[in-house]
Amino acid sequence: MSADSYDLVVIGSGPAGQKGAICAAKLGKRVAVVDRPDRVGGVSLHTGTIPSKTLREAVLYLSGFRQRTLYGKDYRLKDNIGIGDLEKRVRPVLAHELEVVRAQLARNRIDTIPGIARFVDSHTLECTGKDGVRRLHAEHVLIACGTRPAQHPDIPLDGKKVFDSDQISKVEAIPRHLIVVGAGVIGLEYASMLTALGGEVTVIDQRPRMLDFIDTELVDALAYHMRRHGVTFRLAEKVTSVIVDAREKVVATLESGKTVSADALLYAVGRQANTDTLNLESAGLTTDARGRISVSEYFQSAVPHIYAAGDVVGFPSLASTSMEQGRLASCHMFGEPSKLETGHLPYGIYTIPEISTVGKNEQELTAAKIPYEVGLARYEELAKAQMMGDHIGLLKLLFDPKSLKLLGVHAIGESAAEIIHIGQAVLSLGASIEYFRDTVFNYPTLAEAYTVAALDGLNKL
Amino acid sequence: MSADSYDLVVIGSGPAGQKGAICAAKLGKRVAVVDRPDRVGGVSLHTGTIPSKTLREAVLYLSGFRQRTLYGKDYRLKDNIGIGDLEKRVRPVLAHELEVVRAQLARNRIDTIPGIARFVDSHTLECTGKDGVRRLHAEHVLIACGTRPAQHPDIPLDGKKVFDSDQISKVEAIPRHLIVVGAGVIGLEYASMLTALGGEVTVIDQRPRMLDFIDTELVDALAYHMRRHGVTFRLAEKVTSVIVDAREKVVATLESGKTVSADALLYAVGRQANTDTLNLESAGLTTDARGRISVSEYFQSAVPHIYAAGDVVGFPSLASTSMEQGRLASCHMFGEPSKLETGHLPYGIYTIPEISTVGKNEQELTAAKIPYEVGLARYEELAKAQMMGDHIGLLKLLFDPKSLKLLGVHAIGESAAEIIHIGQAVLSLGASIEYFRDTVFNYPTLAEAYTVAALDGLNKL
Repeated sequence: MSADSYDLVVIGSGPAGQKGAICAAKLGKRVAVVDRPDRVGGVSLHTGTIPSKTLREAVLYLSGFRQRTLYGKDYRLKDNIGIGDLEKRVRPVLAHELEVVRAQLARNRIDTIPGIARFVDSHTLECTGKDGVRRLHAEHVLIACGTRPAQHPDIPLDGKKVFDSDQISKVEAIPRHLIVVGAGVIGLEYASMLTALGGEVTVIDQRPRMLDFIDTELVDALAYHMRRHGVTFRLAEKVTSVIVDAREKVVATLESGKTVSADALLYAVGRQANTDTLNLESAGLTTDARGRISVSEYFQSAVPHIYAAGDVVGFPSLASTSMEQGRLASCHMFGEPSKLETGHLPYGIYTIPEISTVGKNEQELTAAKIPYEVGLARYEELAKAQMMGDHIGLLKLLFDPKSLKLLGVHAIGESAAEIIHIGQAVLSLGASIEYFRDTVFNYPTLAEAYTVAALDGLNKL
Repeated sequence: MSADSYDLVVIGSGPAGQKGAICAAKLGKRVAVVDRPDRVGGVSLHTGTIPSKTLREAVLYLSGFRQRTLYGKDYRLKDNIGIGDLEKRVRPVLAHELEVVRAQLARNRIDTIPGIARFVDSHTLECTGKDGVRRLHAEHVLIACGTRPAQHPDIPLDGKKVFDSDQISKVEAIPRHLIVVGAGVIGLEYASMLTALGGEVTVIDQRPRMLDFIDTELVDALAYHMRRHGVTFRLAEKVTSVIVDAREKVVATLESGKTVSADALLYAVGRQANTDTLNLESAGLTTDARGRISVSEYFQSAVPHIYAAGDVVGFPSLASTSMEQGRLASCHMFGEPSKLETGHLPYGIYTIPEISTVGKNEQELTAAKIPYEVGLARYEELAKAQMMGDHIGLLKLLFDPKSLKLLGVHAIGESAAEIIHIGQAVLSLGASIEYFRDTVFNYPTLAEAYTVAALDGLNKL
C-alpha cells in the first residue's frame, strides 16, 4: 500500500469522523482524517456543542441562576457579566478538548491530513492544504463533513447585529434584547442563556409548536419557565424582513404585520451540509436541497464503499448520536458485527431548565394505540432538589399498565440529561418499573425521582 | 378496635419509621407513629443527612470550591462565610422536608402521636407527651428509634469547643482549625466541608485505614485530595485526653505522645442507639453494648411481632437503606410478598470529592478469588467534567473478563452518587459491560464515563 493509500479516508474530524476513524484504526485499518487545520474537532468543538454547553455552565454559574430560589429572585453572582467573563471560561475548555481529539487520533495512529477534501473519483480524493495538493486513494470513505447554519435571503447576516450560531463567538456585547428566529434546539438553548443573564428574548418560528419530537408536557413546562424568565414566543409567525435601523436597532417585520425590535438577532433556522465543496458528482453521489446525503441503516450511501454519518445525514444531529453513527459505519464497512441501535437513543436538550428523554412519549404511544400509565415525580418532593434549589423539575415514567414494562422516560430539570440514563438502562434491558420501586437509591439524590415516580404510577393501577 | 389500638405502632419517624408506617398504611392497616414533637423526621432530618448535605451544598457554592480549577486556587465566592450564611440556606430546606414528612404521614392517615414511647409489655406501649400519658395496644411494633452520637469519658463535650455531630448546629463560629476524632463517614464529611471553607483539619482515628468497606483506590484518592485541601490524617493513633487550655485552644493528647491543638474538636466515633428509654426488657428484648437490636433478614426481632429497622439495627445506617428496611419490615409483618435486596445497595458518601459505589470492590473480589478486569474512565477525559471544572473524578468498572458481566462500579467525583445508579441498573439486571459500549449517552454528560471505562476495559482483554 503506498503512502497515500488508505483503507479508510474520513472527511471531517467532528464526533462522527473521530469515532469512525478510531473504530477502523482499532480494527487494524490504515486510516486518514482530512479536515481544515483550524477545524479539527468539527463544529461540535468550535461553534457547536462544546462552546455552547460550556457557555451555559458559565452563564448558570456567573448569573447565580441556580441559586435564585435560595437567595431570592434578584440574586446575581456577578453584576455586569461581559463577553470577556464568558470567553475566559470557554477558551480553556475548547483548548483542552482540541488536545483530547488530537491525542486520540495520534494514539490510534490515524493520519491527520490538513486541508479541504474533494472527490476525483469514488476512490480518489484530492486534499488541498497550505502545502499544496495531495491525492489519496481510499478503499472506503466516510463523509462526516458536518453542517453550517443555513442562510436566508431575507436575513441580512452581518455577524454583529444579525448573526448565526457560528458567529456568536464574535459578537461584541451581550444584547439586552435578542430576537431568535427559529425555535429549534439551538435557538432555544441560546434564548435560555440570555434570559439567565437577565436579558429579554423574542423567539419567532413558523411552526405552531416547538420541539415536536419531545413530549408535550415537557415542552409546555419549558415554554412556561422560559416565559417566566423573559421569553416571548411568536410561534406560527413568519419573518418577512429584517433591517438594522438608524438607532442601531434590529427590526424584524412579521407576515402578520407585527414588528419586533431588539438589540440583535440570532438566525437559527436549519442547517446546510458542507457537501457543496466535495464534488460528490465525481463519486456518483447526490444530495437533497440541504446538501444532505441519504444513507441506509448502516450509514452506507448509494455508493457501497462510501458511508456518511453525523449531521450530514440529518436528524437528530446530536454529538452523541453522531459518534455512534461513525462507529457503526466503520464496523459495517469492515464486516465487524455490531449491535444496531435498538431505538433507545436519549435526547439531551440543554435549555434552562434542561430536558432529556428516552423511549416513547405520550403522543407517540397514543398514536400507536399502545395503552400506558404515567408515574410522575416532582423535584419539589426530593430533598436533593431542595438543597440545590430546583423546585420545578419533573420526571415522568410511561409504562405498560399490564406488564409494568417501562416505555419511556421524560425529564425536565437539573441534571435531567444525566439521570435519564438510569431509565435508559432499565428500558434497554427490558425491565419493569418495579425495578425502581425495589431498588435502593442513594439519598439524597435526584435519581430518587425514579422511586417516587414508580410508586406514583403503581398507586394508580 | 379501640381508638388506641393499632395494627402497627412505629417508634420513631425517621426514614425507616416513615417508610415502614406508610407501607403498612397502604396495606390498609391502622398505624400510629410515636415521636417527640420536635424530632419528627428523626436524626436524618434534624442533625443528620438533610442538614449535613444541605450544608455541604451551601459550602460548595459559597466557597466557590467547584470553580477553583476554573478561576484559580484562591477563588472565593464569598470572603467571610459565617454560620449565618450557612444557616440561612439550611433552615428552609429543613422546614420544607419537615412539611413533606408531616404531609406524607397525614395523607396516609397515619396517627402521629407526640411523646416518648416505652414498652409496658410486648403489645402495650405507654406514650408520655405534654398532655399526659397515653397507652397504646399494638399488634405489631416497628422500632425505628435511631441513634445518637456515642460519648466517651475521655472526651469532655461542652457543645461549644468540643462537640459531637448533633451539636454542630449550635456551634457559634466556624473554626479555622478543627480536630475530628473518628475517620468514619460523618467525620470525613465534616472535615471535607471545613477544608472547602479554607479551614485546616486534623483527623484522628484508632484504625489504620479509613472507610474499609470502600474500594481502596477510591479511599486513596479521597485521602490524597483531602490532604491537598488541608487535612492531616493521624490514623492508628488514639486520643488519650482532651482539654481546653487557658488560651481557649482545644488540645488533644495522643497515646503516641503527640499533641494536637486546634480551635475546636468534633467527636464522631460511633453511635449509640436510642433504645435505653424503651424499657425493652418488658417486651422481652435485649440489645448489644451500643443499644442495637439484632434482627433477621426480614428485620424481625427475637419477639416475632416486634421488628426493628434503620440505624438501630446497625450498619450501614444510611437513610436510603433505612427506608428500604422499614418498608421490608412492614411487608413481612403483614405477609405481603416483597423482594429482598439482591445485595446491590449503593453507598453514597458526601465527602469532597463525593464517593459512591455499588457491587463488589477489588479487595472483595480478590478475597473471594473471583477474577476480574478493570475499566477506568478519568473525568479529565470528559467534556462535561471540563465544563464543570472537575479534573480529578474517576469511574471504575470491575467485570468478569470471560462473561464481561459487570461486578462492581466505583466512582469518586462530581455527581458520583447520581451516576452510580446507571451502573447499579446494569448490575442488578445482570447485563455485561458491552451495554455501556453499545449505548448512546447524552453528550456532554458525566454519564459518558461509562462508555469510556467500558472501552478501556474491553481494550485490555
